[in-house]
Amino acid sequence: MAATIPFSLLRNFSSLRSARPFVFKASNFNLHLPPQPRRLPFSTSAANNEEAAAKAAAVNFDSEAPTIFDKIINKEIPSSIVYEDEKILAFRDINPQAPVHVLVIPKFRDGLTQLGKADGRHGEILGQLLYAAKIVAEKEGILDGFRVVINNGPSACQSVYHLHLHVLGGRQMNWPPG
Amino acid sequence: MAATIPFSLLRNFSSLRSARPFVFKASNFNLHLPPQPRRLPFSTSAANNEEAAAKAAAVNFDSEAPTIFDKIINKEIPSSIVYEDEKILAFRDINPQAPVHVLVIPKFRDGLTQLGKADGRHGEILGQLLYAAKIVAEKEGILDGFRVVINNGPSACQSVYHLHLHVLGGRQMNWPPG
Repeated sequence: MAATIPFSLLRNFSSLRSARPFVFKASNFNLHLPPQPRRLPFSTSAANNEEAAAKAAAVNFDSEAPTIFDKIINKEIPSSIVYEDEKILAFRDINPQAPVHVLVIPKFRDGLTQLGKADGRHGEILGQLLYAAKIVAEKEGILDGFRVVINNGPSACQSVYHLHLHVLGGRQMNWPPG
Repeated sequence: MAATIPFSLLRNFSSLRSARPFVFKASNFNLHLPPQPRRLPFSTSAANNEEAAAKAAAVNFDSEAPTIFDKIINKEIPSSIVYEDEKILAFRDINPQAPVHVLVIPKFRDGLTQLGKADGRHGEILGQLLYAAKIVAEKEGILDGFRVVINNGPSACQSVYHLHLHVLGGRQMNWPPG
């Protein structure tokens, strides 16, 4: 699915994300690079990277500027799609924190840079997103055990300002939730 | 809103936080027990207790049996209510994992022992719950930074089989989310 993107595009894309190299590294998409050593999923550096990325991203928290998700929705950037309908797209997180880690997003952001921006008119899409999280869990075979997480703002590690639900499962999840 | 609870009750209620299977043990509601030493909020034993509690609770996962939340909804058990409307109740978690930790639940479970039981007809209440999470964050002064978590099943540490959203904030949340 990722094979048709020109390398030059990926490289440039990667450079946008220098503060958080693991997420969108060209090497993640390039089929010809040797496998990289994976970091430990729960390392301190991972947490620090996520926090740092979230802080860096927060400058756009109130902006209507496009995000990486627009490109994913438009298929300009490849993603591993798990579920899609008219209003919703669900695709694998490129930096999974569990054997299953899928992001569920509204195709039309409609002001929802984050959950904290929701108002009454967003009730319908919020319900559809949460229901889609269940569909994703079902499709991924983790209906018996999954966690849904929504991060709002830098102190919650939100790093893309387009509302998204994380659906995680396939391992024992711990408590507290981060 | 919860101000009519006698202080003596609150004190004992607070003492419930010490022993982790706090929610269901009869002794949790025994007003004559001396206060227990509080565990550190992020200790390994906390995680293990939560996992153990979740596993123990899972025997009822498909049951329509009442849960502790019914008693909280009916005000038979006191809680510190943060938000309430016709369909939704939000109250503080008795074992908080962050300075703000509130649970948001539907007053009428309607089959929603967990998110995985949702079907199309639940879309409206799911949206209302997520929107209520935002209202709670606003009321608690953490609109700039909060995390919403939904646990489904024992491997996600679900310990009450009545759908509930955790709203956490007031500290830096870490990644991965548990």
